[in-house]
Parts: sequence; C-alpha cells; structure tokens
Amino acid sequence: MATRVTVWNENVHEQESDDVAERYPDGIHGAIASFLEDAGFETRTATLQEPEHGLTEDVLAETDVLVWWSHCANHELSDQVATRVVNRVHDGMGFIPLHSAKNSKPFKRLLGTTCNIKYRHGGETERLWAVDFGHPIVDGLPESFEIPETEMYGEPYDVPEPDRTVFISWFEGGEVFRSGLCYRRGRGRIFAFRPGHEEYPIYYQDEVQRVIENAVHWATPNEGAADPDWGQNDPIEPLE
Amino acid sequence: MATRVTVWNENVHEQESDDVAERYPDGIHGAIASFLEDAGFETRTATLQEPEHGLTEDVLAETDVLVWWSHCANHELSDQVATRVVNRVHDGMGFIPLHSAKNSKPFKRLLGTTCNIKYRHGGETERLWAVDFGHPIVDGLPESFEIPETEMYGEPYDVPEPDRTVFISWFEGGEVFRSGLCYRRGRGRIFAFRPGHEEYPIYYQDEVQRVIENAVHWATPNEGAADPDWGQNDPIEPLE
Amino acid sequence: MATRVTVWNENVHEQESDDVAERYPDGIHGAIASFLEDAGFETRTATLQEPEHGLTEDVLAETDVLVWWSHCANHELSDQVATRVVNRVHDGMGFIPLHSAKNSKPFKRLLGTTCNIKYRHGGETERLWAVDFGHPIVDGLPESFEIPETEMYGEPYDVPEPDRTVFISWFEGGEVFRSGLCYRRGRGRIFAFRPGHEEYPIYYQDEVQRVIENAVHWATPNEGAADPDWGQNDPIEPLE
Amino acid sequence: MATRVTVWNENVHEQESDDVAERYPDGIHGAIASFLEDAGFETRTATLQEPEHGLTEDVLAETDVLVWWSHCANHELSDQVATRVVNRVHDGMGFIPLHSAKNSKPFKRLLGTTCNIKYRHGGETERLWAVDFGHPIVDGLPESFEIPETEMYGEPYDVPEPDRTVFISWFEGGEVFRSGLCYRRGRGRIFAFRPGHEEYPIYYQDEVQRVIENAVHWATPNEGAADPDWGQNDPIEPLE
Repeated sequence: MATRVTVWNENVHEQESDDVAERYPDGIHGAIASFLEDAGFETRTATLQEPEHGLTEDVLAETDVLVWWSHCANHELSDQVATRVVNRVHDGMGFIPLHSAKNSKPFKRLLGTTCNIKYRHGGETERLWAVDFGHPIVDGLPESFEIPETEMYGEPYDVPEPDRTVFISWFEGGEVFRSGLCYRRGRGRIFAFRPGHEEYPIYYQDEVQRVIENAVHWATPNEGAADPDWGQNDPIEPLE
Repeated sequence: MATRVTVWNENVHEQESDDVAERYPDGIHGAIASFLEDAGFETRTATLQEPEHGLTEDVLAETDVLVWWSHCANHELSDQVATRVVNRVHDGMGFIPLHSAKNSKPFKRLLGTTCNIKYRHGGETERLWAVDFGHPIVDGLPESFEIPETEMYGEPYDVPEPDRTVFISWFEGGEVFRSGLCYRRGRGRIFAFRPGHEEYPIYYQDEVQRVIENAVHWATPNEGAADPDWGQNDPIEPLE
Repeated sequence: MATRVTVWNENVHEQESDDVAERYPDGIHGAIASFLEDAGFETRTATLQEPEHGLTEDVLAETDVLVWWSHCANHELSDQVATRVVNRVHDGMGFIPLHSAKNSKPFKRLLGTTCNIKYRHGGETERLWAVDFGHPIVDGLPESFEIPETEMYGEPYDVPEPDRTVFISWFEGGEVFRSGLCYRRGRGRIFAFRPGHEEYPIYYQDEVQRVIENAVHWATPNEGAADPDWGQNDPIEPLE
Repeated sequence: MATRVTVWNENVHEQESDDVAERYPDGIHGAIASFLEDAGFETRTATLQEPEHGLTEDVLAETDVLVWWSHCANHELSDQVATRVVNRVHDGMGFIPLHSAKNSKPFKRLLGTTCNIKYRHGGETERLWAVDFGHPIVDGLPESFEIPETEMYGEPYDVPEPDRTVFISWFEGGEVFRSGLCYRRGRGRIFAFRPGHEEYPIYYQDEVQRVIENAVHWATPNEGAADPDWGQNDPIEPLE
C-alpha cells in the first residue's frame, strides 16, 4: 500500500511575493506534492489558512508521513494543532520538517531545545556531504551535491545530539551546518532537512527531490510491537 | 566554589499523609537537601506552595543544579515557571528529576515524549544494575544495589534514546526499567533517576544518596565555548 | 529480490552432545535456516568445519545478511575469515550474532570492547521486554515474551553505547541484560540478539523466530550513496 | 593529584625532514608535552623507536591519558603494544589520537571501522566550529577558530556514529570534516582530534593547545563502579 503523505505549507510568501508566486505557482506545497505524487506516494496538501490549518484529527489519522514547510508564520500555528501533530508523531507518523520548519512548534516541542542557528540571506553556494553514506535517506545519491544559490544556515545548531547525522553542509561564506538529522520520538521518525529557501528553486532540484522521497520511505510507519499496556500493572511473578 | 543546588519538591504528600510526614519530617526536599549539604554543596530548597513555586528568575540564576521531586501535583506547576526552568537548562543548569518527576512539565518539555511507563504500588524489591559501570554517576558504587521496598516502574518507558543508560532495574514482579538516564539539552545536563517513592525511606539509603551526589557533580555547569552569535551573520569568506 | 541469508554455525555441540544433536538434528544452523527459508528468504548454511569455514569470498559476496551462532569454538575461527567478515560488514552485509557469538572474533572486532558479561547455566526464566516498542525488529511482537528455560546473561555487558536498545531481559535469578542491540559499522547493520543456548529448544519458539526474521529484514543492505572517493582529492573550490 | 599524561609520537618525520625538525626541534611529542606540562599535567613522552615503543606495561599502568601522534609509520606499531593500549583504554585510560592517528592500530581496533577519509596536501584554511558548544572540551574557546594552513581531511569519514560531535571543520577547498569526536570503550574515554599536520606549526596555536588540554581533563579516568564480577555467577534470587 502506498505511503500516504500530507505536505503542509504555511503558504504565506507565495501570497505576498510575486517572485515566490512565480517560482512556485502551486505553492511550495504544490511543488513538493507533485514530485512525491510522481514518485508513487498517495499525496495531499494542507495549509495554514485552512480551518484547523488543514490538519484535522481525520487528516492526521490518514497521514503516514507529514512533510512540513514553514518560515515567517511559525508563531501563527495554533497550540492545539501543534499538540495534535506531536501526538501523531508519538503514535508513529513520520515527520519531515524542511528548512525553517526547524522553528515550527511541533519540531521544537519534539526536540526540547531552542533550535537556534546562524543565517544569512543573499544567495551563496551550499554543498551537502552525505557523511552517513550508508543511510537509506541517501540511496542513489552522489557523495555530495551542490545547491548553487541558497540562504545560509550556520552552526552551532542548538538541537539534541541526533540519532544519525546524514548530511553536513559546506557554505561559501565559511560556515558549516548539520543539514540532515534523524530523530525518533515515540513510534515516529523525524528527518530534519535544511534546504528549501523560498527565494530559490530548490525543490525543483533532482537531488533535493530524491532526498525527500527517500526520507518519506524511511519515515513511513512500521507495525512495531503491540501497544504497551501502560499504567497500573499486576505482578507477573509472585511477590513475597 | 561549591556547586549551588536547589532541591524542589511539590511537598503535597507530606501535608496529606501522616505516614509520609513522619518518614520525612522536613519534607522530601529537606531530607535530600540535608545529605547534599553534608556532601559539601551549597543547598537551598523550594516548593510548589511558595510564590512562583519558589523558582523566581533570581533563584534559578543562582542555581547550578536543580533536583526535582514531584508526583501527584505535576499539573499544578505553572506553565510560566516550567518555561523558566527549561530555559535555564538550555542555558546550562543541571536538572535531576527524581521518580515521578518524569511526568513533570519541565522534563516532558525537554524530552519531547510522553514519558509513559507501567507502575505498581505495594512495595517490592528493586535491584539497580550499574550497566554503564565507568560513568561518573556510579563512582564508588557496587555493580548493583537493592532497594528493599519500592513502587515498581516498568518498561516500555517512552523516552528518546538516551545519551547514556547508567542504571537498569530488576523488579521482583517481573519487570525491568531504565532507572538512570543521561540527556543534554542546550548546555544543560539532565539525569533522570527513578528511585524515591514517598511511601518508603529511600532517600535515607546510602547508595541512593551517593548516586544523587554524584549526579549533582556530573550535572554542574562547565564554561563551554563562548555564547554562539546566533541570528544574522555576515560572511567570513568573500562571496563571489 | 529475496534477501540472501547465510546461517553460520560452529556446529560443535551438535557433534559432541547427544542431547543437543537430538534437539537440533540438522544443527542449530539447520533449524534457523529452515524457518528463514519458510519466511521467504534465500537461505544457505556454512559451518566452522568446512574449508575456509564455508565463508569464502564468493559466499560472502552473495550474502546479504549473515546470521552467526558460536560458543565454545570462537577462538578456532581463523583471523583471515574474521577479517573477511568484518570487511563485508563494512561494505554493507547485515550481521546478526546470536547468543555467545558476542564473543566471536567478527563481533568483538566490530565493536572494539571486551563484550564481557555474567552468565549462569542451569535453566531459568527470561522475559524479554521490547523497550524500543516502535522498532522494526519488534514488528508484530507483544510488549514482552518469555523464554521458559535458558542460560542467564547478566549486566554489566561491556559494549559501546548502542544506537538503539531494542530488548532488555529480566532473569528469574535477579539479573537484567540488554538482549537486543543495534549498531552500524560502515554500511553494515548489526543486531546482537542474546537468546539461543544450545541446551534449550529456543530457536523453535515463535517469538524468537519472528525477531530473527524481522532482524534479517532490518539488516538487509540498502543502496546508500555512491562509494566515497576516499584518498587524495583535488580542491572543488579555488584555493587562494 | 595531577593527571599523568604520556605523549606518544612515531617521531619519523622529525628525523627525515629538516623542515619538520626545525619546526619541532624537540619532536611533535616534545612540543605537546611542553604545553601540557605548563598546564599542570604530569607529563612524559614515548616514541616508536624505544624498546616496546616506550609503552611498557609499567608506563601504561602509570598513564591516565595517552596522547598519540602518528602518520606514516602506523603499520610499524607492534600488534602486542596495540593490544596493550586497547586493553588499558578498556580499563579506563583516556586516549587522544591526533591527526593521522585515526589510522593507528589502537584507534581502529577500538572503533571497528576503516576510518577512511579524503585528504589533500598543500596548505589551505580550516575553520573549526564548536558545534557542541556546551562540551567541556570547548571550555574557554570561541564559537569557531581558524587554522591558517593545514592538510585537508574530508568527509565521508568512516567511523561509528559518535557519542558527541564536538567540532566540524570547514575547508577552503570545499570539504567538511567532523574534527572532534567523542567515544567511550569500556571505562576509557576517547577524543579524536583532527588538526596537527607535521608541515605546519599547528601545535603552537593557542586554540589547539586549549582543546588538547581540555581533552586531557575530560579523558582523565574517574573511579566508576566497582569492577564487575564477570563470568559465572550464582543466582541472587531463589530459582524455582
């Protein structure tokens, strides 16, 4: 059965900037959903402006992996929906925050840190090195690839020590960044992927699309063990 | 300079149960503060009932390590104070949640999971194995020690994969539990230590006291690197 | 394409003990290969007594996952074959050391520690708790299961902090053990699984078979990134 | 009591190159021992050319932390001495392999991987970012520092996922590298630190000296728990 993906986007820059609207005529969510659809995933989209931000209990219950793009409107997400997303991740839903979604409420709540970084607008070269060259998220990729123009994100990146560091980026201006990080919270897999500033056509780039496709496969929920019988439990062995 | 420790306690069972009040006449916080004082730490206490739960900005600013006991009143902690504690941990304060403090707001926010467990009242034997036998938190301890009567906590324990698993407990009734877990969030070290149910004189036990003393040493903040210059940054290298 | 599994066994107890020979008439390797074959894997076996221990370059090149049982003859494995196995793991082959294979040359070389443990013969109850309840290796399993009679292995277990702790065992005699541990070395996934003493019919037990089947799936190599271009490299960016 | 440090050096380039001999008139070991002595450590040196490479059982027994520089002669180290070093690390000795010591026998045996990298001679700028800005190894350091001229090491670096990634380097030629990595094996702490090519005066640089001093403090053995009683053990609890 195909993995069911929901691509969520705050969808603000596309409304406010002609430049972004021209680059992503169907929104960043539309561009991402399009290549994931082509890759064989069952795909839908949702945006900040919809009722409940398009992330009702029903939508989330039918979502295997949630891809998330956000930037300037991270604070506009309701606490209630943020909690709902976090709970679904605990329950097994994959979560792939892209670019500034590192500042989104669900990601910060799942990680427990500030997620602070350095940044710089203006456009410069980024080279992503696949440091975890055996990881399924880099299947079919070269040992490194370049994004010709991007916003810079720089270390220190205030996140917990990750389960796996998949990519480390080199930036023309002299910084480095851990651009692909794996975490698990409860049953849910999280892959935080840095690239994707709205001012550049990054989601049309082959390698970037391949990473996100691989990440969706990797983050697809598995069965796991039976639900733990949490709470009060009688002894299994006789007590003296 | 001596590490400055604040021992926080919700201090509810001591008020509501003659049995607990008799066991811990100065409160659980008083008992813990007393042996930490004897161990050479500069120690103060704070409780839920005080204004701002006794955890003002000033108190936290002067606290190197916060030892935390809570159980039935975890939900009564104000969100504001929970946020304040989390921020101070990010900034370097050590944090040692004991027993049911695994359900406290600061701990759950720092970890990002449900922290669900199994449990059983009634009193049974627990044996803690020092699986990370080289860790500073087990300095001077035997390879295992017993708590003759305790509440049971059982796996699965819904927490992120820890940085180090220091103790694993064996329970008479057939369960196991990861009873000593290390995490870091920002600059702050966290050691979650399971023992300490209010119905038993656990904090008078030598090995338990030694673990907590060792943990305070381990969680004492270090200098670290200079504060990161987060936010907008100019390029270090010339851009083309 | 079906995962190609080689089940390796030192095959000594089966020759020396009527009791073991009766329990495992086709050898422990035969019993394991049989249920893996039934699970749809392409399966072969190899033993210590064959030329090159049955693990020629060709056999290893055609092996996706190597399941390994050894105990009393760990020291009889040639250094050359041990090196060959280690190299294939680096290159991507999955490796599943069972029971006393924790003392095998390949496992110890891959981990870099002594792998020391406590142990006790005689037969007692073990209960394995699926502490990492969302891991693919516990797919379809209950939150815990029992092995009615087994050899005990006890902590401290001298291994590096694992990538994931999947199982923790409770033993009747008072010990605990991390019975299912995940590591990666190079491209290869390693899952060390404790159960399987030759004196008990452990590999006929459903839950044990399910764990090993799941582990073979989990350890099956993926494509990963292109082979790194290690060694001397020219600069990508112009040097001043 | 002062930490007892042994600085080991293969001491080959100093004999074969006038340039290196002039840069390090007392050998690289002499230069490192000198600033560690000034920092208050009790310091000795040992080299490849001495009997047993200067690393007798007695010397190692009196060594708390072993700092190790090697490059072209890694293969000349005897297997016996390599084993001796590995055993002492398991037993608690800190181990700080510098630069090409990532190819030394003790390091590769402790890690269990190939430790392969990219490299480039010629001299270019390296900038080390303190990504783990709260770690004791970066105490007193800025968020980044530069080495004006160095040999390049590039990812992918074939090592196990580290316990902590302390430094990530940016290189002028377009590569990145995890330049400061923490591991533990048995009781022993390992910090692999990249800088230090013999063709440049890197060990005279303040920041590099500070890192190594901090690492010696961090790697100094602690007491830990009592030695585990490995091997055959009687049951603690009565068996049925």
